[in-house]
Amino acid sequence: MQPLRIGLCGLGTVAQGVLAVLKKNQQSIDARAGREIRVARVASRTARPELDLLGAQFSTELNDVIEASDVDVVVEMIGGEDAALKLVRRSLELGKPVVTANKAIIAAHGNELLALASSRQTTIGFEATVAGGIPIIASLMRALAGNEIQWLAGIINGTSNYILTAMAESGQAFDTALAEAQRLGYAEADPTLDVEGIDAAHKLTIMAALAFGIGFRFADVYTEGINAVSVEDIEYARQLGYQVKHLGIGRISDAGVELRVHPTLVPQQQLLASVNGVMNAILVNGNAAGDTLYYGAGAGALPTASAVIADLIDIARGLSLPPIATSEGETRILSIEDVECGYFLKIPSLDKPGVFAKVATILSDQKISIEAAIQKEQAIHAESQHAWVPIIILTQRVREGVMNQALEAVQQLPEVVGEITRLRVEQFVDA
Amino acid sequence: MQPLRIGLCGLGTVAQGVLAVLKKNQQSIDARAGREIRVARVASRTARPELDLLGAQFSTELNDVIEASDVDVVVEMIGGEDAALKLVRRSLELGKPVVTANKAIIAAHGNELLALASSRQTTIGFEATVAGGIPIIASLMRALAGNEIQWLAGIINGTSNYILTAMAESGQAFDTALAEAQRLGYAEADPTLDVEGIDAAHKLTIMAALAFGIGFRFADVYTEGINAVSVEDIEYARQLGYQVKHLGIGRISDAGVELRVHPTLVPQQQLLASVNGVMNAILVNGNAAGDTLYYGAGAGALPTASAVIADLIDIARGLSLPPIATSEGETRILSIEDVECGYFLKIPSLDKPGVFAKVATILSDQKISIEAAIQKEQAIHAESQHAWVPIIILTQRVREGVMNQALEAVQQLPEVVGEITRLRVEQFVDA
Repeated sequence: MQPLRIGLCGLGTVAQGVLAVLKKNQQSIDARAGREIRVARVASRTARPELDLLGAQFSTELNDVIEASDVDVVVEMIGGEDAALKLVRRSLELGKPVVTANKAIIAAHGNELLALASSRQTTIGFEATVAGGIPIIASLMRALAGNEIQWLAGIINGTSNYILTAMAESGQAFDTALAEAQRLGYAEADPTLDVEGIDAAHKLTIMAALAFGIGFRFADVYTEGINAVSVEDIEYARQLGYQVKHLGIGRISDAGVELRVHPTLVPQQQLLASVNGVMNAILVNGNAAGDTLYYGAGAGALPTASAVIADLIDIARGLSLPPIATSEGETRILSIEDVECGYFLKIPSLDKPGVFAKVATILSDQKISIEAAIQKEQAIHAESQHAWVPIIILTQRVREGVMNQALEAVQQLPEVVGEITRLRVEQFVDA
Repeated sequence: MQPLRIGLCGLGTVAQGVLAVLKKNQQSIDARAGREIRVARVASRTARPELDLLGAQFSTELNDVIEASDVDVVVEMIGGEDAALKLVRRSLELGKPVVTANKAIIAAHGNELLALASSRQTTIGFEATVAGGIPIIASLMRALAGNEIQWLAGIINGTSNYILTAMAESGQAFDTALAEAQRLGYAEADPTLDVEGIDAAHKLTIMAALAFGIGFRFADVYTEGINAVSVEDIEYARQLGYQVKHLGIGRISDAGVELRVHPTLVPQQQLLASVNGVMNAILVNGNAAGDTLYYGAGAGALPTASAVIADLIDIARGLSLPPIATSEGETRILSIEDVECGYFLKIPSLDKPGVFAKVATILSDQKISIEAAIQKEQAIHAESQHAWVPIIILTQRVREGVMNQALEAVQQLPEVVGEITRLRVEQFVDA
């Protein structure tokens, strides 16, 4: 059988990982693909003569790769948005399958790109866009294809999980943990995409498109990052039996679809609560398989290369994507006010008798049930010099709009001396 | 496109699950398959008029299903060995793809059956043979195809894990926990296959064939069940920071392949240690993806049906198995004496000065390093009425043959008053 000839665009970390794994595992990869997988051409803005390009022809022009008649499949590793999008579009228009790790373009343009691939009877592989070496895309598209997926929840940003783990385990403040993550190469110099939850929102968009057949709806994802979580919150959560994790959550119900990314209290006995450091994990609930969980390295050159090469082997074997709904259709995405969660509240209050009762009455008026509460030792409020205590409350599930109304009233109590912290709580047990 | 017409053989629990899921999720299954998946015929020894056969034609004769010209794919759900093997062989000989959940026949006859399928240009799907709804077969065959798998370790018998969890959490004795598992339907009336490790050995055989390309070598699996584990061992292990789990472990190295099933001490911070009750999980180490873990329900009608239907959808889409080495080839399977582990030792000894030193000297003479040790309060040995104490030792990695020699010497010390308990320890960190 003819070799599958790859055109590799980009020579960054992940591209180097792809070259390294293709070299190291060539024999078993070719055996599983049923034919040779050969890197025919490589393009990158600057030549990197120190790299082993496995005999590929090098060019600084992307067009020399994607237009070449000896390139059967284009691997897009240039990153960024505009140039990558253009490259992927052009390759698909030429009828060439594409493999990419670019979550931003799939999340934002997945509907267009999948439709384009389909119209040209070709395919686009994007296993590497979500959670690195964890085969979550293949699992959602194929292994769980007999299921209706009811919800999924994932730790899908390694930087955020590293920082939250460091805060929980060694009591580091957010800024210290972030600086440490940057020093170790787990966070970018500009950490915005990670710590503000945008990267996780990209990945949730992609998983939700496959799980719920609603198309790629990045603009509809409610997104909060970890930058508002304090070490104190994490410690109170732990006392209540929870870990704070940054989750991407998707859920489908008769009311519509939830798509949300935010810090979340997860019960300590849940496996997700034990996923630490830069590791990723996704918990998926299907109506046949029940809960399944997928865990592994969510980033890094070699894990991401593992996903890229899985897609290449599928293409070498002639496997195409299963049909995926790419239109946004009629499915309603719920606004965050319509989502139901449990809540963790930290209410800084004057240490006077009756404050807790007042808060409880306001919650009760909104039919919000208190699941647990703790009151801690006094602290001195820096500005007012009044003694104050944090009232910590864990509530049962309630619609967020209702909780917002209650919190407005609580915030206006004269005894409440600072801003209320509010974190969402998920139990992940079937209703 | 023509519907894919299923011939379902058997109407037991899993077959009923397949019918239920095909009915419930028909629309999304057909969409993902790209064609209708229709149950054309059903065979079972006795008619079950209370079941909804989705319009299929019923017969008490298996041949009426597998030979029928309106059956495109045979789903083998009759269980057992001889009749199932005959049925699968005949279907493949007819060029009909087969889907099965029968781990015993794949483990024992996988080499023959895969070769037969290949020679008839058809395929055999067996995702359901290992770990129910967890897509471990697809992950090993496809999603991790870019990797050389270095080792894998799985909690792959739900009955054993339920019993060990009950022993650990509520201090139940083995017999009590087993009886409870039987009452809940988690263990068979004859629990031999589960508690003696044979079921786990079947599943390890199948995973190892895919991971290491060594063929299906059930006869070469070293197998121990959980029946020798005591509550006391579990408690000592916990004090040392470990959980006792029943694992199937495969590992490949230059020396050969390890295939072994036995109770194992796993560090508490490993996710595997937190997999409780009837749940299953498999940790896989690939040389690109690193460690990935797959978790979910390892048994049950619906989770197993999820796996069966994933295979059916692949067949409907014309996907065949990737090439799998089915010959036993030249790969050497290591004898258990040649395997290296850490060890947990419980040595019942007279409470005299110097006993620990004698034991330590024997271990040291064999170059076995002690990692940790505990000595517990006195107990009265029932028979001898002598006071004795258990000496608990955790060793570093050593070849089992060497450990056996050391233990023979320790057992012969006059101060050692009962049989030494020996459990293996795995850290699952890269060397």
